[in-house]
Amino acid sequence: MIEHSTTVRVRYRDTDKMGVVYHSVYLEFFETGRTEMLRDLGLSNAELESRGVMLPLVEYSARLRRPARYDDLLNVESTLRLPVAARMTIDYRVLCGDELLVSGQTVHAFTTVDGMKPIRPPREFLEMVEKAASSLR
Amino acid sequence: MIEHSTTVRVRYRDTDKMGVVYHSVYLEFFETGRTEMLRDLGLSNAELESRGVMLPLVEYSARLRRPARYDDLLNVESTLRLPVAARMTIDYRVLCGDELLVSGQTVHAFTTVDGMKPIRPPREFLEMVEKAASSLR
Amino acid sequence: MIEHSTTVRVRYRDTDKMGVVYHSVYLEFFETGRTEMLRDLGLSNAELESRGVMLPLVEYSARLRRPARYDDLLNVESTLRLPVAARMTIDYRVLCGDELLVSGQTVHAFTTVDGMKPIRPPREFLEMVEKAASSLR
Amino acid sequence: MIEHSTTVRVRYRDTDKMGVVYHSVYLEFFETGRTEMLRDLGLSNAELESRGVMLPLVEYSARLRRPARYDDLLNVESTLRLPVAARMTIDYRVLCGDELLVSGQTVHAFTTVDGMKPIRPPREFLEMVEKAASSLR
Repeated sequence: MIEHSTTVRVRYRDTDKMGVVYHSVYLEFFETGRTEMLRDLGLSNAELESRGVMLPLVEYSARLRRPARYDDLLNVESTLRLPVAARMTIDYRVLCGDELLVSGQTVHAFTTVDGMKPIRPPREFLEMVEKAASSLR
Repeated sequence: MIEHSTTVRVRYRDTDKMGVVYHSVYLEFFETGRTEMLRDLGLSNAELESRGVMLPLVEYSARLRRPARYDDLLNVESTLRLPVAARMTIDYRVLCGDELLVSGQTVHAFTTVDGMKPIRPPREFLEMVEKAASSLR
Repeated sequence: MIEHSTTVRVRYRDTDKMGVVYHSVYLEFFETGRTEMLRDLGLSNAELESRGVMLPLVEYSARLRRPARYDDLLNVESTLRLPVAARMTIDYRVLCGDELLVSGQTVHAFTTVDGMKPIRPPREFLEMVEKAASSLR
Repeated sequence: MIEHSTTVRVRYRDTDKMGVVYHSVYLEFFETGRTEMLRDLGLSNAELESRGVMLPLVEYSARLRRPARYDDLLNVESTLRLPVAARMTIDYRVLCGDELLVSGQTVHAFTTVDGMKPIRPPREFLEMVEKAASSLR
């Protein structure tokens, strides 16, 4: 597996009248974690799209253990499950300091950019992921 | 179980550069479905809070089968699972015409309004739900 | 001028930890007001785009007098200034009951759909607006 | 005046189907700019609220010159107008590289935290701003 960590700051816009982060916003934090992890692997969205690949989200889930609050500086840990097969699965953990607040998961399909037709994960994609995983061992 | 249906219109704000509804927005559509279902049961948020009860979301999941698009008029079907126990579970289906686009689920805890301490579902709440279910049989 | 009124319900997602609607969300309410007004004029976005026209927003402003709150059922009044010239200007008033909460304005350019190049307002567009205005006199 | 600069990365969630940043999202970028500027002045929201002060937004405006796009790394320049009087005014410029994309402004009132009653800007607040301004001269 490939692990990555990034930080996000909770804004007013992310909170609701309960005083905590609105539940759907964790998916936006997951987006930031996933995007930065893929960028680190050399797989920025621009790079992927230039190769004709998109990774639309087909499933997601989250478990909210404790609420994140305004101005918290959160750690988003993203983990790419290996090997990547027909689908790509990423697990997330959102922490404030040492405390685990939220865990979740997104599942992605591989499609063409034009028309979003399902495709198999491109060999180049798998090789870059494999290379990244090797360098971490 | 108790079923309810409401409509939402997809706005520009709900879409992303892929031209489809951004995945986290379905949770906002679920919120509208859930709120209107509970309102119909006589359990608006104002009513619940006046009785000292909150229903914070503790888990959610969704499966995205087909994308919703700008200006679609969507049907959000919400189904409350009965009986309600320590947790309240609601299932959702988002349709455009006859086509199922997204299915999902949210799980809610019962807490106090002040301090959000866990409580058992209040007897009044369960009675109102039970009464609503009976009138549907 | 052409006037139109529609309603929006304040969701949890629209509020922030101050307990009121987050300020940028009024622009989303303006979007709903504007879209429904144009739809009533026979100028839905689909209709406009099929004619090769887009109306990107180039300026906006708002004045927040009193806060809207969770679950408020708001009235969004949209007013199209006539005649429409190189730019289209729409004024908005957001009310809760009789109380004016927010006023604002958006200014739109006319562009092509492909490449978003500036164009003059199409004659057909102006005629439909003029016809709508006449029928209101 | 006091100037501050911070960066924000455009996410999928910030774009719409036109392929550009949705217009209301610039207000969220302004929030990040403003919050980080005030934090640098020793005036984080937590600090302000502990002194019983809130800064609700009462007016805003923006002019969109060129669109920001997905994955752009934007510079948000915030400028606090001095002296701060009954209202606090902040100007913003959003740039991508050297190119000015958006300019805007927010105006804030001073209120109590409890009940959000209007107050005069607290002497401590003005002194901290004045001290920060002096150190920049």
